[in-house]
Amino acid sequence: MSKKPYIRLDKDNAAVLLVDHQTGLLSLVRDIDPDKFKNNVLALADMAEYFKLPTILTTSFENGPNGPLVPELKEKFPDAPYIARPGQINAWDNEDFVKAVKATGKKQLIVAGVVTEVCVAFPVLAALEEGFEVFVIADASGTFNAMTQQAAWSRMEQAGAQLMTWFGAACELHRDWRNDIEGLGTLFSNHIPDYRNLINSFNTLTAGK
Amino acid sequence: MSKKPYIRLDKDNAAVLLVDHQTGLLSLVRDIDPDKFKNNVLALADMAEYFKLPTILTTSFENGPNGPLVPELKEKFPDAPYIARPGQINAWDNEDFVKAVKATGKKQLIVAGVVTEVCVAFPVLAALEEGFEVFVIADASGTFNAMTQQAAWSRMEQAGAQLMTWFGAACELHRDWRNDIEGLGTLFSNHIPDYRNLINSFNTLTAGK
Amino acid sequence: MSKKPYIRLDKDNAAVLLVDHQTGLLSLVRDIDPDKFKNNVLALADMAEYFKLPTILTTSFENGPNGPLVPELKEKFPDAPYIARPGQINAWDNEDFVKAVKATGKKQLIVAGVVTEVCVAFPVLAALEEGFEVFVIADASGTFNAMTQQAAWSRMEQAGAQLMTWFGAACELHRDWRNDIEGLGTLFSNHIPDYRNLINSFNTLTAGK
Amino acid sequence: MSKKPYIRLDKDNAAVLLVDHQTGLLSLVRDIDPDKFKNNVLALADMAEYFKLPTILTTSFENGPNGPLVPELKEKFPDAPYIARPGQINAWDNEDFVKAVKATGKKQLIVAGVVTEVCVAFPVLAALEEGFEVFVIADASGTFNAMTQQAAWSRMEQAGAQLMTWFGAACELHRDWRNDIEGLGTLFSNHIPDYRNLINSFNTLTAGK
Amino acid sequence: MSKKPYIRLDKDNAAVLLVDHQTGLLSLVRDIDPDKFKNNVLALADMAEYFKLPTILTTSFENGPNGPLVPELKEKFPDAPYIARPGQINAWDNEDFVKAVKATGKKQLIVAGVVTEVCVAFPVLAALEEGFEVFVIADASGTFNAMTQQAAWSRMEQAGAQLMTWFGAACELHRDWRNDIEGLGTLFSNHIPDYRNLINSFNTLTAGK
Amino acid sequence: MSKKPYIRLDKDNAAVLLVDHQTGLLSLVRDIDPDKFKNNVLALADMAEYFKLPTILTTSFENGPNGPLVPELKEKFPDAPYIARPGQINAWDNEDFVKAVKATGKKQLIVAGVVTEVCVAFPVLAALEEGFEVFVIADASGTFNAMTQQAAWSRMEQAGAQLMTWFGAACELHRDWRNDIEGLGTLFSNHIPDYRNLINSFNTLTAGK
Amino acid sequence: MSKKPYIRLDKDNAAVLLVDHQTGLLSLVRDIDPDKFKNNVLALADMAEYFKLPTILTTSFENGPNGPLVPELKEKFPDAPYIARPGQINAWDNEDFVKAVKATGKKQLIVAGVVTEVCVAFPVLAALEEGFEVFVIADASGTFNAMTQQAAWSRMEQAGAQLMTWFGAACELHRDWRNDIEGLGTLFSNHIPDYRNLINSFNTLTAGK
Amino acid sequence: MSKKPYIRLDKDNAAVLLVDHQTGLLSLVRDIDPDKFKNNVLALADMAEYFKLPTILTTSFENGPNGPLVPELKEKFPDAPYIARPGQINAWDNEDFVKAVKATGKKQLIVAGVVTEVCVAFPVLAALEEGFEVFVIADASGTFNAMTQQAAWSRMEQAGAQLMTWFGAACELHRDWRNDIEGLGTLFSNHIPDYRNLINSFNTLTAGK
Repeated sequence: MSKKPYIRLDKDNAAVLLVDHQTGLLSLVRDIDPDKFKNNVLALADMAEYFKLPTILTTSFENGPNGPLVPELKEKFPDAPYIARPGQINAWDNEDFVKAVKATGKKQLIVAGVVTEVCVAFPVLAALEEGFEVFVIADASGTFNAMTQQAAWSRMEQAGAQLMTWFGAACELHRDWRNDIEGLGTLFSNHIPDYRNLINSFNTLTAGK
Repeated sequence: MSKKPYIRLDKDNAAVLLVDHQTGLLSLVRDIDPDKFKNNVLALADMAEYFKLPTILTTSFENGPNGPLVPELKEKFPDAPYIARPGQINAWDNEDFVKAVKATGKKQLIVAGVVTEVCVAFPVLAALEEGFEVFVIADASGTFNAMTQQAAWSRMEQAGAQLMTWFGAACELHRDWRNDIEGLGTLFSNHIPDYRNLINSFNTLTAGK
Repeated sequence: MSKKPYIRLDKDNAAVLLVDHQTGLLSLVRDIDPDKFKNNVLALADMAEYFKLPTILTTSFENGPNGPLVPELKEKFPDAPYIARPGQINAWDNEDFVKAVKATGKKQLIVAGVVTEVCVAFPVLAALEEGFEVFVIADASGTFNAMTQQAAWSRMEQAGAQLMTWFGAACELHRDWRNDIEGLGTLFSNHIPDYRNLINSFNTLTAGK
Repeated sequence: MSKKPYIRLDKDNAAVLLVDHQTGLLSLVRDIDPDKFKNNVLALADMAEYFKLPTILTTSFENGPNGPLVPELKEKFPDAPYIARPGQINAWDNEDFVKAVKATGKKQLIVAGVVTEVCVAFPVLAALEEGFEVFVIADASGTFNAMTQQAAWSRMEQAGAQLMTWFGAACELHRDWRNDIEGLGTLFSNHIPDYRNLINSFNTLTAGK
Repeated sequence: MSKKPYIRLDKDNAAVLLVDHQTGLLSLVRDIDPDKFKNNVLALADMAEYFKLPTILTTSFENGPNGPLVPELKEKFPDAPYIARPGQINAWDNEDFVKAVKATGKKQLIVAGVVTEVCVAFPVLAALEEGFEVFVIADASGTFNAMTQQAAWSRMEQAGAQLMTWFGAACELHRDWRNDIEGLGTLFSNHIPDYRNLINSFNTLTAGK
Repeated sequence: MSKKPYIRLDKDNAAVLLVDHQTGLLSLVRDIDPDKFKNNVLALADMAEYFKLPTILTTSFENGPNGPLVPELKEKFPDAPYIARPGQINAWDNEDFVKAVKATGKKQLIVAGVVTEVCVAFPVLAALEEGFEVFVIADASGTFNAMTQQAAWSRMEQAGAQLMTWFGAACELHRDWRNDIEGLGTLFSNHIPDYRNLINSFNTLTAGK
Repeated sequence: MSKKPYIRLDKDNAAVLLVDHQTGLLSLVRDIDPDKFKNNVLALADMAEYFKLPTILTTSFENGPNGPLVPELKEKFPDAPYIARPGQINAWDNEDFVKAVKATGKKQLIVAGVVTEVCVAFPVLAALEEGFEVFVIADASGTFNAMTQQAAWSRMEQAGAQLMTWFGAACELHRDWRNDIEGLGTLFSNHIPDYRNLINSFNTLTAGK
Repeated sequence: MSKKPYIRLDKDNAAVLLVDHQTGLLSLVRDIDPDKFKNNVLALADMAEYFKLPTILTTSFENGPNGPLVPELKEKFPDAPYIARPGQINAWDNEDFVKAVKATGKKQLIVAGVVTEVCVAFPVLAALEEGFEVFVIADASGTFNAMTQQAAWSRMEQAGAQLMTWFGAACELHRDWRNDIEGLGTLFSNHIPDYRNLINSFNTLTAGK
């Protein structure tokens, strides 16, 4: 049990780390359906952009079989620090990456990547060791199978990471719908088909009012 | 491991919080079958009524796509505090809600809602932070999918919440069948088909005795 | 492939056979969740009543461990032929049952029961043999496990039975919403939580119109 | 076993029927993940457009709880026949719908809709009865649960319908990549994340060649 | 669709073939839980004994890695024809086996074995070819995994075999409880825990009557 | 993380509590297959007998719908303390039960029962509170469904209980095969079909040696 | 039901078609685990080699994102006809492919490939149309997900294809162990871990005999 | 929560313990597919060899039904300490085994074996008790079923063990691809089919560059 029960995401104190979402590595992800996974990763990116969270991109060996970063992420964050690691498996072993993280001045790290037990878990554990508050976006992270996923989750939980999903993180960052109803509604409508349907039904019914 | 192994539900010291069981939001729930989920939510409501536990209702944006509170809950608790939140996502960020909770004078909170990782987890974590003993009714709370559910459970467990189901909570509150055999039996018969069958078989066989 | 592709349920030519939904036998049903199964059986009963289809009840050894017919079915069809079979496992081997079926004058039989591969499949196969058109309500029939269910479905399909669910049957019997919007809507609202939610959201939004 | 083993989709002889993909009804679909289902329906629509297949839209009670047609479909086929049925549950019972189908002059019908055992199965069976060759796009059709889906598939198979998915249909319609490599590649890249990754990896590696 | 819808098991016209339930081969069975499978095989054996059906045992290479026949089957049928095949994979390719089958004079064959797609399917197809009516006891037959099981079932169904389980077969052979209530009840009590519980509850409640 | 990593079962310091394995309550168990569950409960009983562990039986309302204790347990432990609780849901609330537990003089409790989150979890938590070392036999305990099981496991783990299965417990109690090869082998052969097969293959091959 | 129940594989009359097992396309396969799928494809290849069946290789667009044929297949069949199709999606639309098939002079075709509903189903249906007897090796064929797999199987079954697995096909081709015990044993030992374990246990125990 | 969040595998301070991967015991493993399990165990062995980690082999009763160590492990580590335990179930109860472990001079233990809750968990808990840092290779350890696996994982986690998979361990040991790209790539290519495909696609495309 953590000492402080509620460590809460704060949009003024959080940065996003997107680790190794590369076109080759994605073929290894089998603990989550590809349509769903693509949607979750893009939703997380849209969330980072919406809340203007400093975002850091990194890749592993992108000129080899692992393949390039998925183009959508590159295009969304053209000015973000982009660390193409020359060989370090744990991004936290790369000085430039850690410098970029620390340069954000944030104490909360929102992390997602491929594959969960390596590209996510290793920097997560290292960041916890250095005192960061770490939030893993479980549904924008993927790996080989359910057994691997569960072992990775267990290791990160034991070390004090908090497991969340992109939707939960967005809600915790936003705090109050009145801060911007349309903005948050659009984010949800674009990435949650059931919510989009609710909005479309509602808009149709109230259109003539 | 919690310091005190057995924190036990006490019917004289517990309140029930029903968070955002709204007709629109329910279409998002896919980690539990709709027939089963409806039954569990109504069973929890019947349990709250049966044990005369102070119960608090709250909704999020009920005039928008999220839809109104399910009518059965409104009807069962006509005099309960009902906080239609104007925008706060975490019910605990709403002063009226927290006041209502504290006005019950209870130290144990039984919480269920939709969706688990937001509408349930956020006030659960906040209540733990303030020293309440919190019991999550897992089977009357729902969310998008199993992965989200598991991440939400993990976060609440780490913070010290206890995961229960409505049946377990009812048993722990009742303590002894002799307090009211018929009342508890009726609650179970109405919401557990297998138990209802046992009772019907039994009654038929002993009818002539 | 059947010769005639579309053999269509006709409310003027259909009868319903409910076979052995008994309180003891129900404890054997494990291919479908009990909350869902109870709902489906009651929905089928409501459907039969709504369309005023002649309905026949039968039980096997109801004074022994199999237990009595579930009381809800008895109460809903107080005047229906009720054949408590003295020993025949296949209801079609019981003369009174077959007489009751033929007395309805209908050529289409809608059948559900417990357990699928015996209490449903045996009379279904016998009725097909005699030239009836048979529709099995799969989701109001239950058995030990998925393997048994699949084998039973396969045997009935090969013999020419059509597999349906209570909702599909209700839609095919009704043909056109304009025959009675409120009646069919109520049937669905009572037994499909998602549909009930849609109706409640709709009614709330259009209430002031 | 059908007499002619290979009844093959022919782009010059096929029409597409999209039945009741409405915002309310979609909340009933639980046999396929919402992200995946949305993608499949839009992929089927893109396929129809790409191959310039005559497409017919129909809805059931769109001013009630079933909700409006999903806007993306309306927008993609602004000139398609659009039959808002006043009450007929089986679209084939609606004269305008059948007229529109026959007006295409095609003998092959590609059908998808919500829910599978009603809105899809009923017109599929009726069309088979009239001698059409019918191809059900299984993954752009949805229903309550796996049991319902399997029963619906069984009924349609027995009547002679062929079960396909949007990808299989697209491949059978296209016949030869050389007819238009880029067009088909774009369709796949937009709706199959794994294929998109293959293309992105390939393009990156061959960019400098 | 078979021409005659209801080909019904007849205890005066049926023989049982138990094919290759050997201690080594059983380690290959993974489409059904070992506790359940053991119970089903023994239940089928008890059924054969109870109905005094002629039973034939056969093994494949029992002195090699496939291992000996499970001892319980040997002990239960000490006088049954026992064909230890010297090499034929399809038992029907062994003349002694076919002779033994034909010597029973029965036209209905009840078959189970390990593994389903080979040791069961091959003789099943051969027997159908020769005009026997064949009933596969699906839950007393096992194989590598679900995919293999489904392919094997499909092949046998297409050829006209009927898929059943030991319980369904026992019910169809018995026809009427009154032929011997205690005998059938004991068979069920020994192999269906849920039924045993029903009987024990019943006996306790009616003991004093 | 517990302070002492390895709290090890000791056959000289352990007692077994079997809570509410009653014929009626067993119909509620759906998180584990009935054949497997029956086998596990009897295996645990055989283990208790084999290691001569003091064993305590208790039931809840055995004259009502819950039904009598399963007869096999009664017969195996004719001289064990047997507490038919008059109404206490938590066995630990019954003085006679606690006295019987303490009279064993053991500090380690091996607990199993039906249903897991109530009949098992409540006395487990209470015993932990009093300083006992508690080992839950997960596979001889059953409940309504997987969600309930997981919530119950979580609550007991958080309080410091150790989750085991009957096989693991038997191995930890036995320590060394040489203490009695035949005895332990027989226990495993009787309750693990795969192990029985290994033994039978082995014995056949080495018979002539 | 097919007219002739048992169409049996004959090693003197069968050819093997391996369709589009390419390194890129394999990343689309998600209805079967990658370790298992790789093993099955190589097992099928070893089977073809062992029985000296004429084998034909074909690929689709191997210079594009689909990637090259997996190297193991190329190496195993260096002299096999190898048709790199310039664009035809259905291999049967390629004249060279059909010529190569007909040049074998065989009437039975054993087919596997990626993805099932296209690269396998299309030539399977075309070959059936021309009167070949077609055996689909289901476990060496892969596709996007279970729903797609089931629809593809259904379409091929309806057209008269037989679904098998590599192990079943090998057994049916071999007919009698005595034809070559060591050869078949080696094939199984190399691709069935459970069988390899049986053989290793057996060899160890009988080594000294 | 452990005190030190990141306890990291260090190739200069780690030893590998392979416990009871015996041909007989492997037939008990049913929580992971046999093809996958075989691959994982061999991958772990290759990893140990690649990183030159001291490796210790042990077996339980290898002359009895448990069977011999799988030959591949014997052959890969001909000079490794090999402790054939005469009877101790917990390898840590065997003095020679503990001596061998301590003789390595390593503080980190990487453990895998069959079955998880006994042969793995017992020495893991004992080693933690003595202050070792323990990493369980979850996917190279197997047991009876998922329930047993989960209980075993829970017990080891509570005691402070870290759950990993062979791939995660290899990545953490290697630290930086530049230490040896080809060596690590070969390890992955041999045991991860998806990765092998990426490499083959890559090599083909860049071959002519």
